[in-house]
Order: sequence, then structure tokens, then C-alpha cells
Amino acid sequence: MVQKSSSQLKVAIIGATGYGGLQSIRILKDHPNFKITYLGGDRSSGRYWNELCPFLTLDENLLINEPDAKEIVKKADFVLLCLPNGFASQLVPELLSNGLRVIDLSADYRYSSLTQWKQIYSVESTRFNRTDHDLCAEAIYGLPEWNSELIAKARLVSAPGCFPTASLLPLLPFLKQGLIELDGLVIDAKSGTSGGGRHPKENLLLAEASESIAPYSVIGHRHTSEIEQIATLVSGQQVQVQFTPHLVPMVRGILSTVYARLRDPGLTAEDCKTVLEAIYRDKKSVQVLPVGTYPQTKWSRYTNCSILSVQVDKRNGQLILMNAIDNLIKGQAGQAIQSMNIMAGFKDYLGLPLTPFYP
Amino acid sequence: MVQKSSSQLKVAIIGATGYGGLQSIRILKDHPNFKITYLGGDRSSGRYWNELCPFLTLDENLLINEPDAKEIVKKADFVLLCLPNGFASQLVPELLSNGLRVIDLSADYRYSSLTQWKQIYSVESTRFNRTDHDLCAEAIYGLPEWNSELIAKARLVSAPGCFPTASLLPLLPFLKQGLIELDGLVIDAKSGTSGGGRHPKENLLLAEASESIAPYSVIGHRHTSEIEQIATLVSGQQVQVQFTPHLVPMVRGILSTVYARLRDPGLTAEDCKTVLEAIYRDKKSVQVLPVGTYPQTKWSRYTNCSILSVQVDKRNGQLILMNAIDNLIKGQAGQAIQSMNIMAGFKDYLGLPLTPFYP
Amino acid sequence: MVQKSSSQLKVAIIGATGYGGLQSIRILKDHPNFKITYLGGDRSSGRYWNELCPFLTLDENLLINEPDAKEIVKKADFVLLCLPNGFASQLVPELLSNGLRVIDLSADYRYSSLTQWKQIYSVESTRFNRTDHDLCAEAIYGLPEWNSELIAKARLVSAPGCFPTASLLPLLPFLKQGLIELDGLVIDAKSGTSGGGRHPKENLLLAEASESIAPYSVIGHRHTSEIEQIATLVSGQQVQVQFTPHLVPMVRGILSTVYARLRDPGLTAEDCKTVLEAIYRDKKSVQVLPVGTYPQTKWSRYTNCSILSVQVDKRNGQLILMNAIDNLIKGQAGQAIQSMNIMAGFKDYLGLPLTPFYP
Amino acid sequence: MVQKSSSQLKVAIIGATGYGGLQSIRILKDHPNFKITYLGGDRSSGRYWNELCPFLTLDENLLINEPDAKEIVKKADFVLLCLPNGFASQLVPELLSNGLRVIDLSADYRYSSLTQWKQIYSVESTRFNRTDHDLCAEAIYGLPEWNSELIAKARLVSAPGCFPTASLLPLLPFLKQGLIELDGLVIDAKSGTSGGGRHPKENLLLAEASESIAPYSVIGHRHTSEIEQIATLVSGQQVQVQFTPHLVPMVRGILSTVYARLRDPGLTAEDCKTVLEAIYRDKKSVQVLPVGTYPQTKWSRYTNCSILSVQVDKRNGQLILMNAIDNLIKGQAGQAIQSMNIMAGFKDYLGLPLTPFYP
Repeated sequence: MVQKSSSQLKVAIIGATGYGGLQSIRILKDHPNFKITYLGGDRSSGRYWNELCPFLTLDENLLINEPDAKEIVKKADFVLLCLPNGFASQLVPELLSNGLRVIDLSADYRYSSLTQWKQIYSVESTRFNRTDHDLCAEAIYGLPEWNSELIAKARLVSAPGCFPTASLLPLLPFLKQGLIELDGLVIDAKSGTSGGGRHPKENLLLAEASESIAPYSVIGHRHTSEIEQIATLVSGQQVQVQFTPHLVPMVRGILSTVYARLRDPGLTAEDCKTVLEAIYRDKKSVQVLPVGTYPQTKWSRYTNCSILSVQVDKRNGQLILMNAIDNLIKGQAGQAIQSMNIMAGFKDYLGLPLTPFYP
Repeated sequence: MVQKSSSQLKVAIIGATGYGGLQSIRILKDHPNFKITYLGGDRSSGRYWNELCPFLTLDENLLINEPDAKEIVKKADFVLLCLPNGFASQLVPELLSNGLRVIDLSADYRYSSLTQWKQIYSVESTRFNRTDHDLCAEAIYGLPEWNSELIAKARLVSAPGCFPTASLLPLLPFLKQGLIELDGLVIDAKSGTSGGGRHPKENLLLAEASESIAPYSVIGHRHTSEIEQIATLVSGQQVQVQFTPHLVPMVRGILSTVYARLRDPGLTAEDCKTVLEAIYRDKKSVQVLPVGTYPQTKWSRYTNCSILSVQVDKRNGQLILMNAIDNLIKGQAGQAIQSMNIMAGFKDYLGLPLTPFYP
Repeated sequence: MVQKSSSQLKVAIIGATGYGGLQSIRILKDHPNFKITYLGGDRSSGRYWNELCPFLTLDENLLINEPDAKEIVKKADFVLLCLPNGFASQLVPELLSNGLRVIDLSADYRYSSLTQWKQIYSVESTRFNRTDHDLCAEAIYGLPEWNSELIAKARLVSAPGCFPTASLLPLLPFLKQGLIELDGLVIDAKSGTSGGGRHPKENLLLAEASESIAPYSVIGHRHTSEIEQIATLVSGQQVQVQFTPHLVPMVRGILSTVYARLRDPGLTAEDCKTVLEAIYRDKKSVQVLPVGTYPQTKWSRYTNCSILSVQVDKRNGQLILMNAIDNLIKGQAGQAIQSMNIMAGFKDYLGLPLTPFYP
Repeated sequence: MVQKSSSQLKVAIIGATGYGGLQSIRILKDHPNFKITYLGGDRSSGRYWNELCPFLTLDENLLINEPDAKEIVKKADFVLLCLPNGFASQLVPELLSNGLRVIDLSADYRYSSLTQWKQIYSVESTRFNRTDHDLCAEAIYGLPEWNSELIAKARLVSAPGCFPTASLLPLLPFLKQGLIELDGLVIDAKSGTSGGGRHPKENLLLAEASESIAPYSVIGHRHTSEIEQIATLVSGQQVQVQFTPHLVPMVRGILSTVYARLRDPGLTAEDCKTVLEAIYRDKKSVQVLPVGTYPQTKWSRYTNCSILSVQVDKRNGQLILMNAIDNLIKGQAGQAIQSMNIMAGFKDYLGLPLTPFYP
């Protein structure tokens, strides 16, 4: 239904049938300036997309191929990598050396230090041999509201994790302005089960996960270090956070509830809302709610929006920040395409859904 | 199916068709030593229970009556009041003066000070004229694991709120032992929608609440003061908590995630688990999980169990306490009957479900 | 984000805050050729839309008014009526006489006979005084795939019920071609709870409706007569159907499973698929699946698509037809706007979502 | 909490960690006259039950063993086999020859003809070599309401499938009495996702199955032949049914909606209710609802009850039968234990849950 521009840029999507791939295809199918020209996959290679996904057919039916940089470079300008952790690192060097621009949805290039990646993603590091220290240092962290200038020129953008996106967007303005104490930061995050991916796991079955909420990876979740890396960078001081994710019986969405203490306990909720508005005023993908209105993940579902709200307990200067995103769009594929828009010189929100369906 | 004792004590349930009433009837139907002999209600008065609830029939079908203390005293030894806030205060004085023993599931007698109740439940206080300062002072807070001696002798027990139950059980041991800092306490609570009651509200419709999680009553939730009252009492010092409830797309269950800082950052998670075990060792309604196993609300669903777990971030001595309960059983009717068991001289867990169905 | 045409037609939406209104606003907000210029409502009149719905803001914030034909005619070309049954009949005569073109989402004009309406909607008929026999006879049944020529010229279009839409689209081709027996027709329909509307009801609470499926209005559902009216018209013979709706624990979607007996038991599933394809080939809002692929309501969710599949039991010539729609879009607001597109001379699918988000 | 009898019979459960095993353990844990003395499993062998299932601990923690008939016979009187199709056939001969009495929850002994089993379960038949024609002929179909005398004396009972249980209980009385036409029988069944078992599959993920309803195995579902075998046996004439299962976004429960034509169209719904009551009057696990009250699966959840309702369309003598069961209890483990009760000479409902929790 969408009017496609006559001179579209061509995009390859690798890892098409996982949730990251599915969302990317869904969004790009309606994107005016990008066109999907190549689909790569592993288990699904040799099959045609439209047979595999009768509910999301492409006008031009594409065969899914074992990813091959030589072939990709003939067909595409940009590559979206939607693969499990570790796999991207095996493809990226060759893709880049062939002149492709790459957006990686995995964690492979989220740390500027490969050594840190190997420590945090220790299981993957034993499986995948990596020496690309330089690419880790080169890759740009693809949080468009904070990094758009670097993204614009990047060869390689690493799309942030879903929890870091949900947590950093409300937190960074206060860290940058030095408005909060750096100790005692608590992030209590709640995610729908699609965050666990499409590969079947017992704990993600409807029969198991429905009608229940539970914490998981308490203390040890890998997104903790990703959040801390960026928070430290922006605040200019070492930041530690208490990050606890919870699994929520719903398909999509992350709500991040962030607790911090104001350095100046005289600041009001309205003051804090102004802090958020000042930073996000021109950002189409961030909405700041009125004080007293709190975000529901449903309001951000199927959109690239991050919906923020802030509250202050006047008794003790405790700050409560809330953020609702769609974990598969702003938390994954949508944000990656937002970066790709910037890399291509388009408006960052071009072709991205910004209005939810409700209910 | 249950073997009923020959000399059963008689119970009146007022407010039978709300969730508190329904759960009370469900549990007492199978209780060996109690027998339901009177049902009171407002909107449903004049109707027979078994016609109203074909899915939960009583062997002896009962007519639902407009509650009348004179009638109740003829039929019952104990009264379970399952009414919206404010209503109990209009019945309790007469029930007590007729010699009945009362367990109230509402908030009416949760504060020892009527003045505080009027301040917190301000809307109800304008609707219901109350001068029963003495009864507020007399009423026993019905948290059986902490108050069983007083409950045993009480005329009037006030069953705790669902969030206070979920929050205090993990927190009180650490407050009592003086193991945590009193500032910076954060309670991030998640509740199923049945916590909002059976009276229809737009935000509790499946179409609205499903596929979404959201915070509500940030800063201002009324259970904050209830938690603080008991926490202050047990710790012996003024305690403030940052309590934020969230609505979760599931029917039943509360998960409370409590964040605190250890005074001695050298304590390990195992040490902290020992603290919990020492206090709850003989309590059948509290289970402490091994370190590294985290509670799912589904594990406590349809039971009177509180399932605790503890974790410590060694980097900074941050303590994370988790508790899963069924909001309508341990958080409401089950705990009320647990108190009634104690009042009657029975084992506190008599007739209470302690094993969940799974999945 | 959508490019709006320079000369847009103006639309008034009456009943803005119910689900029909919400969906209409959501779709028209992104429609290239229509613009919302008036919002009418009852309980919400006097409030501004953007404050009421922070998750679905309009670029031009509108005040919600008590509907008034004199005002509406100044502001709009088309009126979408999204009101409970009975209310439309009180507004339509005046709207039409002022030259407005009206699409009604309620049942008020679905029967060509007012007498039949009064019989089926007996409760509403005692509340609303109606004598508009002529308008009932004039109104066009807005099933665009079957009625587009009449819709194009209509002053008054009555959007079909959700269950009739879900049931008639697969059934009509076989009735029209005389391929099935007219007796023994069984329609087993399954609907998400949003079909019950946004006004709070106990049985639609998440706590009640979740984790359960149940039939309701067995034999007596009012959509039975609506289905029979159209089926009779298309087949040219009196048709009776066994229609049984079920409430499904999900927000949106209707699945209709239709059972019929083939007159010629030699027809195969592929033959029957060809019957559907022949009729719906050029219809963008109808998709016919390959034999052996069965529709999920999720595949049609948030779209105006009807997704059909057919199967035949070779042992006995039993035909099974399946159809998945979104009850609030193809089953309500989307189909109404599809008719409005036709009335305005646009392509019927203009501005309508046709691709689902998944999962 | 349950008073255990002093001389309990001993039960081995093989396949403990699947849903059939979990339910069996849950029920027997509280059973007064049975005691679990042996747990067998494959993937979980070598582990202790209480570590594996912290939410369903046994008073006497048991090690899970690779099933071994020689060991089992030393420890148990009865064996509950809760294994995927095919596996039971490899264990049953030796278990029986060692004098054990066996209840099998799989499909292995549901057909009196091994040849038919091999035809229907063709994939399993290539994997498992079977020649036990005699055991197929000997095994008793464990539908206690219809087969209790044979069950009482059986060595080997085959617990019915979940859909056959849900479909046959309402249908058999009418077939037995010859009250309905044998052609045109339609069974539209709806099941929660736990019916697909605990082994992870993509389509049973919460992210996939939630917010959707879909038919599956249309025409070809294997339970069709099981239903037809028993229906033919009871009616004395060849019966074919149109059986269509649907996957419902809920954990547990099956609703079966059965459509048939009355031979005598003068029969009323009340007459038909009397037919059901006459047959099920003394059956504690079957409840017949008043005419006009329709069963919700939630009313049967976590119980061994089958909840029936009947309606008649007077216009054409169409009969609609409805039945709600818990697919994992009456549809699986509960019914198996009901048979085991009968085999042991106990009341059939002993130790079985008959009252639901609601909501």
C-alpha cells in the first residue's frame, strides 16, 4: 500500500525467520526508501519466504540463502544481521571489506573491548574464534537519540540490547546532567517472552510462562554490563546498576522502572519531566508523558516509540523513571532500521511505525 | 471429599460474591474443622448461593442475606468480613458486642490509629462515619508468621493487604535483625488483575489489561503506609519505603522484588538465606528457595504459600529479596483463615492448600 | 508519517472512545484522503481527545462534543457512527436530511425490515422510538466484497456485525454457486473479548475471562438472524444456520469455523479453494490460504484482512470453511472505512492496514 | 496435609517430568490410599525429584531412574505410564508379566486392533517394533463412567485421549439411546496449549500461541478414529464424526462443542438434559448444568470434573452438546487415577480434586 520511492536502497536481511528478522522484514516491506533484496538464513535456506511466512508475504518472493558475502555484495547496500550472539562476528569482517554497511542486532559489537565481550559472552567466545578488536573499537553503539552523528558515518552499527534501550533512555539525561547519585541505582525491568527469541525453550512455552511472573538472571544478567558501559561513558564516572529482569506473561514489550536518588531533593516531578523533554524534544521516537500518567507497554506495542514518565517522592527525593518500549521494535529491529535511516541520510523515523493499535 | 470433623466451628461470610468471599468459601468448603453456616451480601441478597455459583456449590445450599448481627450471632462463631473498604467498620462493633470473633479482610482495622486510616482512606472516611478509635487500637494485624500469639487471643483480626504481605515477609527478618540500611528501600511489586476486585472497571478488562504491563499509583499507593507502619514497628526505627505496584496481565499472584543495602557488605546470599530460614523454619506457609532459584508466582498460585528467595550483589552489598504469593489466598482469604485457625486453637495451616497445580 | 492528500474529505466520528471509535480514529489518523474534523461523544463530551487518549494523539487536538447534526454538517462530509445499538437511529434521519453520508457501525440498519429489528433488538426497541422503515429499506449492507456497487451510491451504509462478516465471507461463495446443502449448516465462532465492547462487564474482566473458553448465547445470539438474512438473499432460498459463539481469552480476533455438506461429494479441497479464489481474486482484503494451511487470528490482527481456508473430508463430502478476521477492523471499523472509501470513489483498501505484526 | 491411610498401595510413575507425570504426582501426593514409591524417566534419570521440581516437593525425595521392570516390581503395585506415544508398548509386556497392574496414558493401547494403531500412529509404528496384538485386544478403555466393571478387573487400562474424553462423555448417552442421526455429527473442540505437551515446540511458545486461535489437523487428527471407535461400539452402528481441534491461548482446558440432529425434533433441551442426568446421576466426576447455563473451562480447571450442558434449536431439532474438562486431569492423569482407584477397589473419585479455584 506504501508508495515506494523510485530509487530505493537495497537491504539484505540475514537471519530472516527469527523475531529480529521477522520484524525487520515487516517494517521494510512498508518502508518508502528501502527495498529487501536478499534474505539469508541457516535452517530455512533453500526455501521461499512466502511459503514459509504466508502471513507476511513479499511482493517479490525471495529464496532464503546460506549467507555468502560475495553474493550479498552484488545485491545489497546495507546488511541487517539478525543472528544469535557470536554468528555476526564471523560475517562482519568480510561484509565490511566488500564495502557493505552493516547493522548488527546481536551483542557481538556492543562492547568497544573484545576482551570484555569474551568475558561476558564466555560461552559464545569458546565457540566462535574472534580477533576483531579493531571492529569492536570501531563499531558505533546504535542508540540514535544519543549517537546520531557517529551513526551517520558508520560502517558498522551495533544495535543496543532491548533492556539497555529501555533502561538508558530514561536514565542517561539524569546521568549526563549529574542530577542523581551514582550509587543505589536500581533497574527493575519487565519483559514479554518474545525477548527470549523464537527458538523453542521450555520456560517460554505458553503453558509454562502464562499466568506467572518471575525474576531471572538476578545479579548476573549480561545486559548489566552493557548498561553500565554506556552509563559510565555518558556520566563520565564509573556507574554500577542493580539490574533485575522479570519475565511477564505477554508477547511483546518491556517496562523499565528505574529508581535513583536526586542529588537535589528539592527537584519536583515537573522539573524532572522538563529534563527529559529538553533532551528528547525533537525525537519522534521518544514521548514524555504528563506527570501522573504512567506508561503501559501496550501504548508502545508495534511502534518504535519509547514512552517515558517520571515521578518524585518528595519525602526523600527518590526519583522513579518509567519507560515502555516494544522489545522487538525500539528494543531491536526498529531501532536498527532507525540507525540505517540515519546512515542513509534519511530522517531517522522514516518508515517506522509510531502509532500503536489499541487495545 | 474431605472428612469433616464432627464438632465443627461455624463461620459466617459477609461479602460472599467478591473475590475475597469466593476464596473463603472455596477454602472453607474443604476445611475439616470449620463449616459455613451463614452467607451475607448486598447486591446478591435474596439469592441462593448454588444458583449464583454453579461452579462452587455447597452441600447445604445457603440463602444470601442482608447482613444482620442479630441473625449472625445465632448461626456463627466466627465472621469473615470480605467487604470493600469502609463497610466493615459499620458492622464490627455490633458483631463484637454480640460475642462474635471477627476477621476483617479490608483495610478498616489495619492501622492502630483511626486518624491515620481517615487520612489514608480519605474518600471512604467521608462516606463512613467512624469513631471506633478503641477498636483500631485493639485489632490485631493478622500476619500469622509474626503475630500468632496475639492473634490467638484476639476478638478482631485485621488481615493484611496483599502487597504488604508480599513485601513484609521477606523484609521483616532483615529489619528485625538490623542487617540493612533503613534508607533507599525499594519495593517493586507486580500484581495480577484480580487484585483490583470483581467489580467491573475498564482498566481491568481483558481487552485493556492483557498484553501489557504498567505501573500505577506511583508514590501514592495506600499500601505504602501499611508497609511502613509494620516495618517501623518491627525495626524499632522510622522506615520509609519506595513502593511501586505494577499491573501484570495474569489473574492471580503478586511478586514483590525488594531492594536494600546490607549494613555488612560481606554477607553472602547463603548467609541471607540462613536469616530467612532461621525465622521461617517451622512456618508451613513460607518456603525459602535455594540461592539461585527464583520464585514464580505460578508456584504459589492457589496456595497459602509465600515463596522467598534472596540474592546479593557482591560488588556493592546490594540485597535483592523476592517473594511470590497468591494475592487472593496468602494475600487475602487464605491468610485470614490462617488467623482464624490460630484463633480457634488449630494448627495455623489446617485446611489450607499448600501445593500448587502446575502448569 | 503519512503523506496526506491536499484535498482531504472530512469525517466526523461519533462515539469516539468506544472500541469502534478508537479503531476508526487510529485508521483515519494515517489515511491519506480522509481527515478527522469532528469528534462526538456522550460521557466524554467536553474533554479534549489528546488528554483522554495520550497513546493515540491527533495532530490537531479536538474537543469531544455532544453530537449535534447542525454542527456536524458544518464540519464534515461523512459521519462514522460508533454507538451502542439504538442510538444511531436517533441521529441518522437528521444527518441524512442535512446531506451527510453516514456509515453506521451498530445493528440499527442491518435489517431491511424495521419490524425484524424490533423483534431481534427487543430491549433497544422499547428504549428507542423508531419509525424509520424507509431508512431500514434504503440502508445498504456494507459488505464491500459483495455489495460495492450499491455502497458506492449509498447515503447510508450499515456496517455488518463482526460474526456475520466472519461467517458470510467464506460461506457466501458456496451458497451463491449452490454447491452446498442448505440444511445442517453449523457455524462455530470464536471471538476475543474486545467484541463485548469497552464498557466494563464482570464477565469480560481479565480475572474472569482469562484462562477459559466458553460458549454463550447458544441458539439465541442476535447475529444468527443477520447471517440468515444475507445467506437467504444470496442463495435465493431460505437458509437456517446453527450459530454458536464462544468467548476466547484474547483481545482481538474472530475465527469462524463453518461446517457444511457438499452437494457433489466428489469436489476436492482444491476445487473448493478455486471457488473462493474465483470470487475473491481481486479483493485486497481477502486472502485464500493454500489447502492444508489454516488461518490463525493473529495473522489478521490489526489488519482489514479476512483469511480463508477450506478443507474437505473425502469420506463424506463434509466441507470445513475457516475464516480469521480482526473483529475490530474487518469486523467493524476497518470494514466501515472500506465502505467509506468506496462511497468516496477511492480504492476500497486505501489507508487500511493489510499486513499484520507478528508475533 | 492429607491424612494418609496406614496401608497404602504403591505406585510407580514413569515419565515423571512431562505434564502427565507432573499431574499424576500432584494428585497422588495428596491421595489417601496411594503412595508414590518409584519415579522413572529418561532425560531426568539420575536426578532427585525435589531438586528438579522445587514447587512440587515430595515428603520422601525420590531419585528418578531409567525405568527397569525388575526394579519397579520390587517397589510398586501399580504403574502409571506417562510417556510419549510408542514408548509404553516397549515396557508394558514385561511389567504385566511381572504381575504389575498398568495404566497407560499414551495412545498405545487405545485401539483394540494393533493394526489400526499402526495405521493411525504410522510414524511411531516405524520407530517401535510391536507385535502385542493380544495386549491391544486385552487392554480396557479407561473411561470410568462407561467401563467401570471391566476396569475393576483389568491388568492393563488405556486412559482415553483428551479430546475423546471431552467429546464422548456428552455424545455417548445420545448414541446409546439412539436419539440422534448418525450422519452430520460435528465436533468442534478447543484446547489449551498444554495439550501439546511439555517438550518445547515453536507453535506452543507464548509469543506464538498467545493472542490467537487457530484450527489444526483439520480432517486428519488422530483422535478422530479413537472417537469413532468408541462411538461405533456404543451405538452399535458405524459412526463417522467431523472432528476439528483448535488451539486456544490458555494453559489448560478443553471445550468440546458437539452438533447433532435429534431423530425426534420434538425433544426439548430439558428432555435432553434428563437423558444426561439419567446416565451420570451417580457419577461424581460429571456435572450436568441447568439448561441455559453453559460451561466454562475454568469451572473444570484443576479438577477431574466433566461439566456438561445441552441446548436444542427448536426450529430444526439441532442438538448442541457442550463439555468442559481439564485436559490434564479428566483428560489425562486424573482419569487415569480414577481408573486406578477402581482397579484398587476404592471409590472412583477418591483423592481426586472436584472443586475448582476461581477465578
